[in-house]
Amino acid sequence: MTTASTPESAPGAARVGIVMGSDSDWPVMRQAAEALTEFGVPFEADVVSAHRMPHEMIEYGSRAAGRGLQVIIAGAGGAAHLPGMLASVTPLPVIGVPVPLKHLDGLDSLLSIVQMPAGVPVATVAVGNARNAGLLAVRILAATDTALRAKMAAFQESLREQAYAKGERLRAEAAALGAVSGDA
Amino acid sequence: MTTASTPESAPGAARVGIVMGSDSDWPVMRQAAEALTEFGVPFEADVVSAHRMPHEMIEYGSRAAGRGLQVIIAGAGGAAHLPGMLASVTPLPVIGVPVPLKHLDGLDSLLSIVQMPAGVPVATVAVGNARNAGLLAVRILAATDTALRAKMAAFQESLREQAYAKGERLRAEAAALGAVSGDA
Amino acid sequence: MTTASTPESAPGAARVGIVMGSDSDWPVMRQAAEALTEFGVPFEADVVSAHRMPHEMIEYGSRAAGRGLQVIIAGAGGAAHLPGMLASVTPLPVIGVPVPLKHLDGLDSLLSIVQMPAGVPVATVAVGNARNAGLLAVRILAATDTALRAKMAAFQESLREQAYAKGERLRAEAAALGAVSGDA
Amino acid sequence: MTTASTPESAPGAARVGIVMGSDSDWPVMRQAAEALTEFGVPFEADVVSAHRMPHEMIEYGSRAAGRGLQVIIAGAGGAAHLPGMLASVTPLPVIGVPVPLKHLDGLDSLLSIVQMPAGVPVATVAVGNARNAGLLAVRILAATDTALRAKMAAFQESLREQAYAKGERLRAEAAALGAVSGDA
Amino acid sequence: MTTASTPESAPGAARVGIVMGSDSDWPVMRQAAEALTEFGVPFEADVVSAHRMPHEMIEYGSRAAGRGLQVIIAGAGGAAHLPGMLASVTPLPVIGVPVPLKHLDGLDSLLSIVQMPAGVPVATVAVGNARNAGLLAVRILAATDTALRAKMAAFQESLREQAYAKGERLRAEAAALGAVSGDA
Amino acid sequence: MTTASTPESAPGAARVGIVMGSDSDWPVMRQAAEALTEFGVPFEADVVSAHRMPHEMIEYGSRAAGRGLQVIIAGAGGAAHLPGMLASVTPLPVIGVPVPLKHLDGLDSLLSIVQMPAGVPVATVAVGNARNAGLLAVRILAATDTALRAKMAAFQESLREQAYAKGERLRAEAAALGAVSGDA
Amino acid sequence: MTTASTPESAPGAARVGIVMGSDSDWPVMRQAAEALTEFGVPFEADVVSAHRMPHEMIEYGSRAAGRGLQVIIAGAGGAAHLPGMLASVTPLPVIGVPVPLKHLDGLDSLLSIVQMPAGVPVATVAVGNARNAGLLAVRILAATDTALRAKMAAFQESLREQAYAKGERLRAEAAALGAVSGDA
Amino acid sequence: MTTASTPESAPGAARVGIVMGSDSDWPVMRQAAEALTEFGVPFEADVVSAHRMPHEMIEYGSRAAGRGLQVIIAGAGGAAHLPGMLASVTPLPVIGVPVPLKHLDGLDSLLSIVQMPAGVPVATVAVGNARNAGLLAVRILAATDTALRAKMAAFQESLREQAYAKGERLRAEAAALGAVSGDA
Repeated sequence: MTTASTPESAPGAARVGIVMGSDSDWPVMRQAAEALTEFGVPFEADVVSAHRMPHEMIEYGSRAAGRGLQVIIAGAGGAAHLPGMLASVTPLPVIGVPVPLKHLDGLDSLLSIVQMPAGVPVATVAVGNARNAGLLAVRILAATDTALRAKMAAFQESLREQAYAKGERLRAEAAALGAVSGDA
Repeated sequence: MTTASTPESAPGAARVGIVMGSDSDWPVMRQAAEALTEFGVPFEADVVSAHRMPHEMIEYGSRAAGRGLQVIIAGAGGAAHLPGMLASVTPLPVIGVPVPLKHLDGLDSLLSIVQMPAGVPVATVAVGNARNAGLLAVRILAATDTALRAKMAAFQESLREQAYAKGERLRAEAAALGAVSGDA
Repeated sequence: MTTASTPESAPGAARVGIVMGSDSDWPVMRQAAEALTEFGVPFEADVVSAHRMPHEMIEYGSRAAGRGLQVIIAGAGGAAHLPGMLASVTPLPVIGVPVPLKHLDGLDSLLSIVQMPAGVPVATVAVGNARNAGLLAVRILAATDTALRAKMAAFQESLREQAYAKGERLRAEAAALGAVSGDA
Repeated sequence: MTTASTPESAPGAARVGIVMGSDSDWPVMRQAAEALTEFGVPFEADVVSAHRMPHEMIEYGSRAAGRGLQVIIAGAGGAAHLPGMLASVTPLPVIGVPVPLKHLDGLDSLLSIVQMPAGVPVATVAVGNARNAGLLAVRILAATDTALRAKMAAFQESLREQAYAKGERLRAEAAALGAVSGDA
Repeated sequence: MTTASTPESAPGAARVGIVMGSDSDWPVMRQAAEALTEFGVPFEADVVSAHRMPHEMIEYGSRAAGRGLQVIIAGAGGAAHLPGMLASVTPLPVIGVPVPLKHLDGLDSLLSIVQMPAGVPVATVAVGNARNAGLLAVRILAATDTALRAKMAAFQESLREQAYAKGERLRAEAAALGAVSGDA
Repeated sequence: MTTASTPESAPGAARVGIVMGSDSDWPVMRQAAEALTEFGVPFEADVVSAHRMPHEMIEYGSRAAGRGLQVIIAGAGGAAHLPGMLASVTPLPVIGVPVPLKHLDGLDSLLSIVQMPAGVPVATVAVGNARNAGLLAVRILAATDTALRAKMAAFQESLREQAYAKGERLRAEAAALGAVSGDA
Repeated sequence: MTTASTPESAPGAARVGIVMGSDSDWPVMRQAAEALTEFGVPFEADVVSAHRMPHEMIEYGSRAAGRGLQVIIAGAGGAAHLPGMLASVTPLPVIGVPVPLKHLDGLDSLLSIVQMPAGVPVATVAVGNARNAGLLAVRILAATDTALRAKMAAFQESLREQAYAKGERLRAEAAALGAVSGDA
Repeated sequence: MTTASTPESAPGAARVGIVMGSDSDWPVMRQAAEALTEFGVPFEADVVSAHRMPHEMIEYGSRAAGRGLQVIIAGAGGAAHLPGMLASVTPLPVIGVPVPLKHLDGLDSLLSIVQMPAGVPVATVAVGNARNAGLLAVRILAATDTALRAKMAAFQESLREQAYAKGERLRAEAAALGAVSGDA
């Protein structure tokens, strides 16, 4: 892989586009934005509805790579068509977040996003788990970025430390129930 | 993003690792290999079982980035733990392929792979759709590789042309049923 | 409703467009064509893939009403986006046929088609039941067409007669098992 | 299609009948009425229970076309038989709204409505989405009504504008999280 | 309960009506007939389609009690409306048999039959298990018929004996695998 | 059917036994008791747990017919074994009520009750619908009891009248939304 | 089985290890601890996350038997990998508790735990039912421990007595509704 | 744990009882027997049907511990009551195997077995996976048996070796597709 082949990404310009069908999805989708912020990855966020503004949605997807975006994160619920439609008009990796609606617990959203036909993949994460969409975007960018990968490794180390701390609290609570010390 | 920050990948060395719990998954998973071959992306393939060789599985994931891999594709069925466990020990993007088993039509495989907790994402594709896993790996690598991205765009164009050809055949068949020409 | 307000439909021109993502859906979708043929409703049929030719799909939907189509029937499987996307770019009624794929028995197709957000309805029929899509198109056209409605009423009468004939055969078979005559 | 063949619909008379099994379904089903009101389509609404007044239900369906109705919208929950039974006694298009009950999240309602046998279609919309039933009725009437179709096109344009407005609000919120402007 | 209050049932006249939507359901439903034959309960069998002959279906249910039937067994698949509709027009107990169709494995049939609203029960048996519908009809008639109840008790005893015989065969097979005798 | 063959049921003695695994099921199951009370059918109610008092459960079922019971109604949740186990030790008709628990919305309860093997039927009603279990017991007893059947017919008539009254209220509400009178 | 072959378990040392992915699972999992406490079985409890501290998780499982543990109870939700991964690195019996998360009602957790491939079993209990995990651990230890087995038998007797007491309360409540005494 | 407290198990007497509702379950359940044979654990196998021989089933469970059994493995399908009913009458650990029937793919069997109420656990394994039931029985017995535990550890090691061998074959096949050697 030569330098020349690396797509240009203007300094400070968004590398990740976070889109969703409605601003009502923002409470879920902002977790993707927060994850990107933690890693210092510039992003943009917008409402791009497959069903209410289909022409603009196609336009958004078609222009994404040319504008310098490198990953798209799309959240949608119910008959969730946004991630798959964007994937059909861009060569970029598209991450789909199944947003749970009032009924069916997100199972409809999940199947509508993940069950894409051969040729057009969508990288699907767990129901409502936009934070993981953000982290997956970071991993994707870090696939060819040593510095970002080091940050991800450090982040994973911090997860471990948080788990340790939780273990300490739990052992204290369990001791109150008569638990034996694990060191015994 | 500077050149210096790009992880080293020796010429000809595998950029994608395709792993699965058993060689019985190969008829499904080889479609990922074929997709990578079409795009000229070097890969390796191996049996890495989360449940039968857990230590080696952890080892595989832990060493993957250091060995020059940039993406991991993991296929598994039933209580499918391989993609998620690999994701927990590598900073690389991990793509999970739910392999359908004899019962439950892959729904167990899908949920076991996609429903990862916050912090450790797996990029999940459709049940049994390893081809899309391969294509997603290409998109991920192409996120920062102009030449590969152009190939993906050309591939997408070829999908369109195949669909056109299918349409031509279909219109002929439908005409036999009395269908009016779409141009009328 | 005045004559003036009736959209022009050239004699012999297609009133219904039957579209699907691939010609592999034809064995299912041709049943819609056959139903329309039985009622003398002119139709066209084509491959219009949401994921492989998204621009043409949008174009197809956007131009459908102007070309004289009055109803669209769209069949799709898995993450089935075609019916909903067409509905988003046409004011015509769109009928969706969930095509069952190899896994999940069409449940993914059904949910992907029927669970449309408020604003953009798709008239969904049973999994794999393209014949009913054709019949629904006839009912829609017959809503304002006395002659077609009379044909539909006659068709429903013929269903009754077929059921009678089946009953006769069944009573004979049941008598062999010792069933009492229903007239007794 | 000649003027003569257009079924007579007295000025001001209901063109759409909205029926449901109980007045407890009204909070869901009134959204269909509201949609029709927005488009100026005259409708009637009533309780017609398949299970509590089956004879009257059959009567309602049998007489609907003769009374000048052109579309029927039927909402029901659980073992939801109303839409399908009405469809069996009328040549009119019948739209089914799966009303979610306390348990099973409307999945029972959806399957009971959509899985109709060949010969008798019901145009099914999303669980609890009576607004889309109203909009689908408008599309059906607009299939042969230029003026109504223009209203539907204008409505779809308004959806787009609402989506734009939502996007504006979202971009502002996202900027507070550090999002880059999409224009950058 | 006095003798006078017992509904008249002419000798040899059908006490159970077995109905189904199509003769294609007969291979499943004949098992109900066979069970009734084993117990010497006179029955009739017919095609009564809720969707193809709704008026006759209502008529069948409305007249059933007057004709001397005491139990109705109704089989149906998909959006299975026959059992519930019959229950709405007769005071007789109605037994519903969910007939599995090609897709969804009978789950749609089951939910369409069992999830009846308060007021109108259907006694539902397992998917495809028409034999149990026949046996349930016998139990219902035996609730007030000592002789029939004795036959049912004897039948249950025979089930036990069959199970014993199966056990004997199994122990022999297991011994070949090295199983210890259960008496040891 | 002769008088002699009618099982003796002492005046005032319980004809229906309502049992459940725990008194926590009573809020659901009391609706069965209320239905029986409305029809003047004497009943008993008790806790009979398949899992916590299996010997007594078997005893209860084995003695039920001899004690004069004619129908058993059994409610249970989760791995709901009570209805099926009782059915295996009594020749009486057993009605099963799937009680929904905290998770899975009663789907586990429903399948555990309805999917009985050939030979031992359970008459299953809707999830949580104990009222229908009571009404089904009345229909079963009324199968051979003219007076009770007349009461059931009158009850069904009252359902119709309630539905009418609901319709009246609904039409008034709908008129406020601009609905046309159905008589127009 | 000789004494010599019995694994050493230091007096007072933990015989059961209760682990979970996060301290947020403790409200569910503490019920396992309480059950063990009731039976006087020494236990330890800790956070051991398959995804956040995979190396330590493998270490925990690998060392469990050597440290004197005889049973492991592992709770996890969503893509629940902890029980299965521990089972792959220990010869001890591992009990899995599917912890329900916000969406999908624990169905994902259940399938991710129970559907283990041949070779590596996990003893799975009901969704959210950690108390049963504790009781199962007691039964496992009691398989070769006469004293503990006697305690379990006594516990089962106490369940019966509690059910009796519940029955007494229920009969009183039912009598208020007019229920006949079961002894009548 | 003292020697005195170890339940007596006569040399050669069955330690594990494998039971099932019908000999038609034997092709599935014999895999449990084979696993036990591999580990030299004496077992018995029999038909014990919860629904066809309930009294004998209760008897079997009640006497199991006294006869020297230490673990029970019970397989059942559909409304699978055998494992849970046995667990209610024995203090022994009971392992449940959900046997898949013709419809619903074993989901009914799984839920009927695993969703046991608090107080009476069943150790559930994967749908149709009787081999794992046998291996789980071995782990349970090995919890207090050093020699058996060593065999289990050796067995797990052999799984690893088989996985290696599969990997070798897979790498050869993949090389034919152009895969890079993993060592590269």
